[in-house]
Amino acid sequence: MLPLPATEIAPETVAAHLFHLRDINPLVHCLTNDVVQEITANVLLAAGASPAMVVAQEEAGVFAGKANAVLVNVGTPRMDMVESMHLAVKSANIHSVPWVLDPVAAGVIPWRDQLIAGLLNLHPTVVRGNASEILACAGMGAGGKGVDSTNKSEEAVPAAIALANRFSCIVAVSGAVDYVTDGKTLYSVHGGSPKATIVVGTGCSLSALVAAFVARTDHALEAVASCCAFAKRAQQQAASISTGPGSFKVAYLDALHLIEPKDFF
Amino acid sequence: MLPLPATEIAPETVAAHLFHLRDINPLVHCLTNDVVQEITANVLLAAGASPAMVVAQEEAGVFAGKANAVLVNVGTPRMDMVESMHLAVKSANIHSVPWVLDPVAAGVIPWRDQLIAGLLNLHPTVVRGNASEILACAGMGAGGKGVDSTNKSEEAVPAAIALANRFSCIVAVSGAVDYVTDGKTLYSVHGGSPKATIVVGTGCSLSALVAAFVARTDHALEAVASCCAFAKRAQQQAASISTGPGSFKVAYLDALHLIEPKDFF
Amino acid sequence: MLPLPATEIAPETVAAHLFHLRDINPLVHCLTNDVVQEITANVLLAAGASPAMVVAQEEAGVFAGKANAVLVNVGTPRMDMVESMHLAVKSANIHSVPWVLDPVAAGVIPWRDQLIAGLLNLHPTVVRGNASEILACAGMGAGGKGVDSTNKSEEAVPAAIALANRFSCIVAVSGAVDYVTDGKTLYSVHGGSPKATIVVGTGCSLSALVAAFVARTDHALEAVASCCAFAKRAQQQAASISTGPGSFKVAYLDALHLIEPKDFF
Repeated sequence: MLPLPATEIAPETVAAHLFHLRDINPLVHCLTNDVVQEITANVLLAAGASPAMVVAQEEAGVFAGKANAVLVNVGTPRMDMVESMHLAVKSANIHSVPWVLDPVAAGVIPWRDQLIAGLLNLHPTVVRGNASEILACAGMGAGGKGVDSTNKSEEAVPAAIALANRFSCIVAVSGAVDYVTDGKTLYSVHGGSPKATIVVGTGCSLSALVAAFVARTDHALEAVASCCAFAKRAQQQAASISTGPGSFKVAYLDALHLIEPKDFF
Repeated sequence: MLPLPATEIAPETVAAHLFHLRDINPLVHCLTNDVVQEITANVLLAAGASPAMVVAQEEAGVFAGKANAVLVNVGTPRMDMVESMHLAVKSANIHSVPWVLDPVAAGVIPWRDQLIAGLLNLHPTVVRGNASEILACAGMGAGGKGVDSTNKSEEAVPAAIALANRFSCIVAVSGAVDYVTDGKTLYSVHGGSPKATIVVGTGCSLSALVAAFVARTDHALEAVASCCAFAKRAQQQAASISTGPGSFKVAYLDALHLIEPKDFF
Repeated sequence: MLPLPATEIAPETVAAHLFHLRDINPLVHCLTNDVVQEITANVLLAAGASPAMVVAQEEAGVFAGKANAVLVNVGTPRMDMVESMHLAVKSANIHSVPWVLDPVAAGVIPWRDQLIAGLLNLHPTVVRGNASEILACAGMGAGGKGVDSTNKSEEAVPAAIALANRFSCIVAVSGAVDYVTDGKTLYSVHGGSPKATIVVGTGCSLSALVAAFVARTDHALEAVASCCAFAKRAQQQAASISTGPGSFKVAYLDALHLIEPKDFF
């Protein structure tokens, strides 16, 4: 049983947040891992945001202050990138730019867990991960299989709530059902497709999309849940016309572009 | 009004340059950004060139001397890559290998602008960018929105002409209409598709393709304009059979491979 | 004439090794080049393995000991990555984790050849490359055109046998026909499609797939030949429904996912 009652995010809320995204075309500063650079940029472009990967230490801090949102993904955290992440996050905090932490593979390697703990202490607006990662961030799990979860999203809801309360942030757990919470309210998001798990970067690029959705909004919790619902809708549409992971990815990018706010009514 | 009369590049010229590319299968040494590595290689392969991303400082200089053309793209310029770019460019100049500069996000961050200014002083054969980037390179604009242009290509033609004359290079401005100039002659290239702007790397990979087209030619200006016309043709073909950015990218790579010189007659 | 009689790998052997891969879902630790990160992960996921790109020096050694197989690909070997490769390989050897070396562009640049020679001395389980690369590794060729082979796979069979005997490893030569040998037995694998050569990363990701196939097996030689046969089958299936390199890549990923062991009977 879930520790809080879960409410499905309302379709008209999703529509409103998608409309807002397309209206403002947010500039999303991405500091992400080596593997998902291209899909992350393409997901943002398809949905209606402007990606920019500015990673040099000489630039990352300045640029974060000009962006509408920042993504920090620790998938391949070399020391120069870690330094740039800290510069970007500190600048984002000074300029009140929301930022999202994706704690890739939390719980697998102690050195990385220390890095993630340090970033959590810098107050992310949102933490988005799979169940094993969120459990590990909350100190309640032993990590997944490399970057893949070995837990169901339901199992991580108590960890998500604890984490949200401890760091005053929003936590999104991705899985067959997504859960989004600020520690007090819990949204569930159904839908999606298991095919998404056999395409690299669907989770990482969702974190970037979450950043785009929380740009310039006073309703960040609903924005995050709306983002998850939008992505799950696109996954469903893609799954219905694809035969394997190659065609799924193509159709997913198409769907992110083609779905309109009115499609949620 | 444009400061020089613009001539559309002739279809038979495009055909001749495409034929030449496929005849020599040029080896293009790419020093480019983290986000577009794969699409850059795939665009070159699809069109008929051989890409090679050789980026270590121990290798970049030696390899540039063996290549038929070099691409320098400053999209994610970490210091080790910047050093490799300088080694490659100096070697290219010594060995008379043409090289192309893509000044990604010029005008947005002062540190990057200094880097770009230093590269311009090393005499690129071609500079290719969007309107905001070319305006910034010429000291006539304030930069775009991250990596995206906030100006129309027409607006950057005076800057392109000034830049071409100042650095004795060819300048290509990409946009709804492309403009290519050596400071004396101005070519325009119509066609293409706005869908290209929602796929990451269509601009960056065009710079790589420009490098392939200027390999071993005495008619670099016409080669650059021909490259732009070839890419715009491929975009049009792709747009006519795709529904969104995912399927557009797939169809664009197919079209770059399938279009033949005779298709321009 | 080949120096050893070549036997085609049996379809039921291919089926058994593919069944094993999907049964164990091996965790493959990839240290690979900048260009092919995404396709490498997607090929592994599509086929039924779990990729993880863990590259920081603080993590690579620890993680290699937890993986089921390790891939080392020297396509873009910056010094920090080289250090991580050595840490991963040494850990793999200590923990009896099999590892695959992909000697990208061997024979082209002396500095890289030294790096490759050092890795060969650390006893890879498998070396997989194109003909020019295998010839160069054995000291019997002058390298290809950048990363592309200028030799047919047949020409590299003597080099493959010499290399396998010298380093007590398995050597796979990719080409129109693949050859796989441990220095005593020689397997040939027919099939595939030339379209694979105009999509970047089909060779590099095959090395990763070889790593997945040699995870937890006592029949590594047959596992490598089975992997090549599986990939060639997927290429054929993809070629039959695609028009160019863009659609070929999509169909290749689909095919890697859709082909089942029973399809080889």
